[in-house]
Amino acid sequence: VRVAVLGVGRVGSAIVADLARDGNFEVTAVDASAAALQRAMLQGATSKQRLDLGDPGQVGKLAARHDLVVGAVPGPIGYQTLEAVIQSGTNVVDISFSAENPLQLAELAESVGVTAVVDCGVAPGLSNMLLGFTETACDRVERFICYVGGLPVDRGGLFQYKAPFSPIDVIAEYNRPARYVENGEIKSGAALSQLEQIEVAGLGTLEAFLTDGLRTLLDTARVPDMREKTIRYPGHAAQMALLRGMGLFGQEPVDVGGINVVPRELAARLLIPLWEFGPGDEDVTVMRVEIAAVSGSVSSRYVFELLDRYDAQTGTLSMARTTGYTCTAVVRLVASGLYSRSGISPPEYVGRNAGCFESVVGDLKARGVDLRESVAALR
Amino acid sequence: VRVAVLGVGRVGSAIVADLARDGNFEVTAVDASAAALQRAMLQGATSKQRLDLGDPGQVGKLAARHDLVVGAVPGPIGYQTLEAVIQSGTNVVDISFSAENPLQLAELAESVGVTAVVDCGVAPGLSNMLLGFTETACDRVERFICYVGGLPVDRGGLFQYKAPFSPIDVIAEYNRPARYVENGEIKSGAALSQLEQIEVAGLGTLEAFLTDGLRTLLDTARVPDMREKTIRYPGHAAQMALLRGMGLFGQEPVDVGGINVVPRELAARLLIPLWEFGPGDEDVTVMRVEIAAVSGSVSSRYVFELLDRYDAQTGTLSMARTTGYTCTAVVRLVASGLYSRSGISPPEYVGRNAGCFESVVGDLKARGVDLRESVAALR
Repeated sequence: VRVAVLGVGRVGSAIVADLARDGNFEVTAVDASAAALQRAMLQGATSKQRLDLGDPGQVGKLAARHDLVVGAVPGPIGYQTLEAVIQSGTNVVDISFSAENPLQLAELAESVGVTAVVDCGVAPGLSNMLLGFTETACDRVERFICYVGGLPVDRGGLFQYKAPFSPIDVIAEYNRPARYVENGEIKSGAALSQLEQIEVAGLGTLEAFLTDGLRTLLDTARVPDMREKTIRYPGHAAQMALLRGMGLFGQEPVDVGGINVVPRELAARLLIPLWEFGPGDEDVTVMRVEIAAVSGSVSSRYVFELLDRYDAQTGTLSMARTTGYTCTAVVRLVASGLYSRSGISPPEYVGRNAGCFESVVGDLKARGVDLRESVAALR
Repeated sequence: VRVAVLGVGRVGSAIVADLARDGNFEVTAVDASAAALQRAMLQGATSKQRLDLGDPGQVGKLAARHDLVVGAVPGPIGYQTLEAVIQSGTNVVDISFSAENPLQLAELAESVGVTAVVDCGVAPGLSNMLLGFTETACDRVERFICYVGGLPVDRGGLFQYKAPFSPIDVIAEYNRPARYVENGEIKSGAALSQLEQIEVAGLGTLEAFLTDGLRTLLDTARVPDMREKTIRYPGHAAQMALLRGMGLFGQEPVDVGGINVVPRELAARLLIPLWEFGPGDEDVTVMRVEIAAVSGSVSSRYVFELLDRYDAQTGTLSMARTTGYTCTAVVRLVASGLYSRSGISPPEYVGRNAGCFESVVGDLKARGVDLRESVAALR
């Protein structure tokens, strides 16, 4: 199976490495950066292709020469890239997390007969599958909450935080109103609000606050109460609320001594050296999904927990492991035809297929990403 | 007595009003702003003079036509203004708080035979007088600590803080290393460090941290332990340390998408609307000076406390009251010849004269600025 991986950054290169180990895939690494391509070859890519990923025309032509495409490009070009791949008629599994709603491409994908699984990381991604699986297994789901976060293991430093991607994307997430569902209605709250403390074995007391992470679930899930909360070390929300409150996350240019400055751009610029994972910096991924569901007369509370750590052997960040291996698990399902729904599939659709769900969880487990499940009957 | 008040901003105009009420002064208000001059006339100024205060030549000529000058100009032009006034041969009382050490002008002032009292506000100012007074009254002083701060009465808002002057000056204070004296040695610590909580009757628990406020005392006082600490509502130091730590107080330009931005300038720009006292916004000034001194075999601990509030009747901020009325008290001493030392006098020199000290405290009391003193014999 010929797979093109579009974008071989931190996550893309973990995807290349994992698919290359399978033996069933011929992996083409695609990127604009020669250095990134070089690294991808060392990770086991079969070939490399230097390409401006911002050019949908070129992306479409390249996609047409492959059996399957993995989209791992930066968010701002995620949607146009996905559209170009679908138009080329090639199946695709995507983790680009564009700001646009990928479900807008559903008709196009169906008309072309393409299988496109989007938002296919850990959260969104695995978290959606957990909900899809539970929705199918039970009569109805009453409540869904996903706590999720990536953290540096070393708590030193001013922010007790590092980001494996650009600070400007984190800032955007903290600035954007966060949609959640309450009593069957979609509501909007401030990101960083609804702050609570949660205990995580092995990490101690953490904090969690509202963020806009439900994405496709707002359209697809019939659950009267849903929210996503981001996990950080305690104090982070207050720090970010301060920066946001003073206007530092703003996108409107401000006149500073006669020159126009976009506060958010300066903020991101100052945070890059403080938030960057350096060589050997370890991270951890925490996810806790709580689902209250009813079957017949029994109410149950399902708790799925994931705690994954940096892989020191390969130098792979946990964020790349959990995102990348969820993606490759679905790549296998699509490549083998086990998942073949035509159109746009958010991960909850994959989760509704019990066989597919078990396959993803099994693939993750084989890679050391262990999802623990507990169920308590409530009545 | 013809007095020129250079700079009639918040503090300068309170000085104009106070001197005008005396009846002994003909007060010329001097400023570049026509609006500020208009307000000063309403405060009782005898005449107004529009002038570019940044031009020392013009300042010198104007000073020569007066018997006494009050310097209340922005810090950056404070030193050059003071120098020009001294060169004109006119006595001066100054509250401009320049970054430069005014004692460098001592020889010039002595040679011209001018009486120049500098740093003549509340702290530096009144605090220095308290130390000067105690040094003269006792055999030796072992310890001096000045806690001081101006706070908004309304604790609402992101920062629980407002500044009656430009945020960029506050930022500079938080960024500059803070000098203090320990075991007879001048040491340097980070501003915002040595954080402690203090209780102030009427205001509750406040916080205090090291700032670089000793100024002339570093040269003039023979005290083995001295420090100045700034008072704020709790949490302020942590907020400022965050902004400083992320580089937002830096003065080095940073490249943001091809344009050079000085982080401190953007920070100040964003803080202006958040820190500005609006019409009717009330402030409070807190000062607590602790002095440990020995006379014969008796060790005593003197505590001087001041808590002053916004004057709603005249709309005068407490910061302008405490700074301005200390200044006008010394203006009266110099105008009447009760204080006539030629050269540069920091306020501790004024305080060493018991009669002058009592006169200042009396003038302040008459204006409702009440300094309470308590003494405890330690052994």
